Amino acid sequence: MDETTDAGLRSFVEVPPDSHFPIQNLPFGIFHRPGEAARVGVAIGDWILDLAVLDEAGLFDRTAVAGLKVFHEKRLNRLMALGRQAWREVRATVSRLLRSDEAVLRDNRALRQKSFVPMADALLELPADIGDYTDFYSSREHAHNVGTMLRGPDKALMPNWLHLPVAYHGRASSIIVSGQDIIRPKGQTKSDEEPMPRFGPSRNLDFELEMGFFVGRGNELGHPIPVQEADEHIFGMVLVNDWSARDIQKWEYVPLGPFLAKNFATSISPWVVTLDALEPFRTTGPIQDPQPLPYLQISGPQAYDIQLEVYLQGDKMAEPHRICLSNFKYLYWNMRQQLAHHTCNGCNVRPGDLMASGTISGPDPGSFGSMLELAWRGTKPISFPNGETRVFLQDGDRVTMTGFCQGPGYRVGFGEVTARVLPALAD
Amino acid sequence: MDETTDAGLRSFVEVPPDSHFPIQNLPFGIFHRPGEAARVGVAIGDWILDLAVLDEAGLFDRTAVAGLKVFHEKRLNRLMALGRQAWREVRATVSRLLRSDEAVLRDNRALRQKSFVPMADALLELPADIGDYTDFYSSREHAHNVGTMLRGPDKALMPNWLHLPVAYHGRASSIIVSGQDIIRPKGQTKSDEEPMPRFGPSRNLDFELEMGFFVGRGNELGHPIPVQEADEHIFGMVLVNDWSARDIQKWEYVPLGPFLAKNFATSISPWVVTLDALEPFRTTGPIQDPQPLPYLQISGPQAYDIQLEVYLQGDKMAEPHRICLSNFKYLYWNMRQQLAHHTCNGCNVRPGDLMASGTISGPDPGSFGSMLELAWRGTKPISFPNGETRVFLQDGDRVTMTGFCQGPGYRVGFGEVTARVLPALAD
Repeated sequence: MDETTDAGLRSFVEVPPDSHFPIQNLPFGIFHRPGEAARVGVAIGDWILDLAVLDEAGLFDRTAVAGLKVFHEKRLNRLMALGRQAWREVRATVSRLLRSDEAVLRDNRALRQKSFVPMADALLELPADIGDYTDFYSSREHAHNVGTMLRGPDKALMPNWLHLPVAYHGRASSIIVSGQDIIRPKGQTKSDEEPMPRFGPSRNLDFELEMGFFVGRGNELGHPIPVQEADEHIFGMVLVNDWSARDIQKWEYVPLGPFLAKNFATSISPWVVTLDALEPFRTTGPIQDPQPLPYLQISGPQAYDIQLEVYLQGDKMAEPHRICLSNFKYLYWNMRQQLAHHTCNGCNVRPGDLMASGTISGPDPGSFGSMLELAWRGTKPISFPNGETRVFLQDGDRVTMTGFCQGPGYRVGFGEVTARVLPALAD
Repeated sequence: MDETTDAGLRSFVEVPPDSHFPIQNLPFGIFHRPGEAARVGVAIGDWILDLAVLDEAGLFDRTAVAGLKVFHEKRLNRLMALGRQAWREVRATVSRLLRSDEAVLRDNRALRQKSFVPMADALLELPADIGDYTDFYSSREHAHNVGTMLRGPDKALMPNWLHLPVAYHGRASSIIVSGQDIIRPKGQTKSDEEPMPRFGPSRNLDFELEMGFFVGRGNELGHPIPVQEADEHIFGMVLVNDWSARDIQKWEYVPLGPFLAKNFATSISPWVVTLDALEPFRTTGPIQDPQPLPYLQISGPQAYDIQLEVYLQGDKMAEPHRICLSNFKYLYWNMRQQLAHHTCNGCNVRPGDLMASGTISGPDPGSFGSMLELAWRGTKPISFPNGETRVFLQDGDRVTMTGFCQGPGYRVGFGEVTARVLPALAD
């Protein structure tokens, strides 16, 4: 057992039991104080621990990052590139420094004052410069739901779906961090009744509940990453809201896939939770039948038990209402298989690349990860306590996703990814 | 008439009439001498003019780049970000300095020796850090050919094709510069006869003749680029070989589009030819019927008369053989429409983003831009003088694409993009 994830571990920093950021988590992020340069921090309770300050104090001198100034960077890419051994040394050092029985930081008031920043006073940024963004389609339930709507239940899954983790390339430039609102996109749409397409604001704006992993160390072009070595290349995970304009998608996507229906914005949560922090929550994923080809075979539990929730709050609603309760463990294809498949042709990945899961839907209707599925293509409107209903998102709606692993008396969580829908620009 | 493109313009640098790089062209690129740092250069005849040296000599002091050191960068992104007025000032300055009747550089032997590098002695690099790569599908003839093979001639074009420039996101990490060879990719394939998919080297490796443009100045997320303003955001063009594994593509591409069939490598030519250099070669593109929606309407000639050629040389062939003669002007959708469409939903583009045209096929069979079309899905093998035939690429084959505009007594060209196919890695 890795001692950094020990359930009995306590920090001298007070952390409420429902906090997502106890000492067992220690996610990495990029923050800045107003008017100051961005740098690397770790979340602990309601605080951010400024790793650049600790580095200047010499507290990482015995680790692989000594002298590299990676915590003074405004993105995590250089830390990500160092590889898992370096990440583990940093994590172990931060864990030790935060322990209630470790005096170095606890009893150094000046250093504490310099290195702890109230989360409420900080601005969180994108954790990485994202070179390439890939979106998988790895939830069997989601693929089945969408396929059923389009082609009926008998032909719901395409023939390739059970043999490989289907994916497509997304847009890196429009990935934004939680808190940044989105503008309702315009685009070409054409209903079956209309003879010609028209241009205007999307009327079928949707969210997609996803998670994503950041690539740590990359690979050379032409040289695949074997599925058994994938962990060495996965830095950590975030929540992803893959905003989707269903009406634009329906008209544009044949034959080359979604494009403008997706690339106007993708929101992610700011704190990157490492695989090491998630290790106690590994669990067995769905049985894969037929057996995947050898390059996708990996034994042992490859899923993670991460409870996922989606909340919606319209501008006339007093509070957010939960409309989806799902779990990361439902995914059919796991992250190691995704990365092995992505590189099996020699495609290179680079530190900071983001790979999202695809919409995570579970088996029951309350666990569906998009409004398309929750309201079943508009036929089952979602009701809210104030009497409003929704089949797709309205202007002013705020969508908030959250997720956490429940340990004994503590949670290892992802915080949230939230954004509000602003009206389309005037013509 | 812009004087930098005047057909009568002469340089004191001797340039053969079939050179792609006369004084009327002046494409930008990134080069380095062995052992030295990469920097920005301009091609002139068989030479590279080192703009960093000229900048240090103060020759850009009256332009928008004064003091910015953009020519000391190892990529063109910072120059691209400055906008068209800055590019034009640089171009006008370089054009003036190279004129036969301008003494400043011509008569300064020491500066000439420092600033002119024989192209044969330099290594050319990727011109830009490419944040996002988009591949369009803008040749009607190509879409019709592929659609005919898959669905028959009556349903060849999808219903959306004549209404919008179809596109999908490609992979930025695996874009390589001319001269770097590619490794035959492996992947999952399944023929109609096989009950299960298998994994191994692609047997249907193909090229795609394309051109691409680099985005110069970008736009803010949420704020489209109107089609009339697109020129302000287009830095210049290169040749693109969009390598494709047809057997992998066939199995994987439903429903989200091509992925591993394309992302193992995309080759581009190193010299970026500006729109200003191409201006004398503007011509009228295909008539667009039905009329596009207003956001895609732009009047005047929007195509360019660029002759394109593809050569193949197997390792048993004494020389390269031309297998395709096409032209950029055949494209149905033009670059301004592509950029306006790409951003009409608010998607942001950034300096250095690459947007490729899609395979450029013309009306006659000799102008088809891929082996899939040239050999019509394997039914019409391509014959070579030594008796060999091809339906797809074999190991050892070298594919070279070139393109140029023919002026009176000079050519404005793109050089070439070339690469050889290396065997798949051993298991």
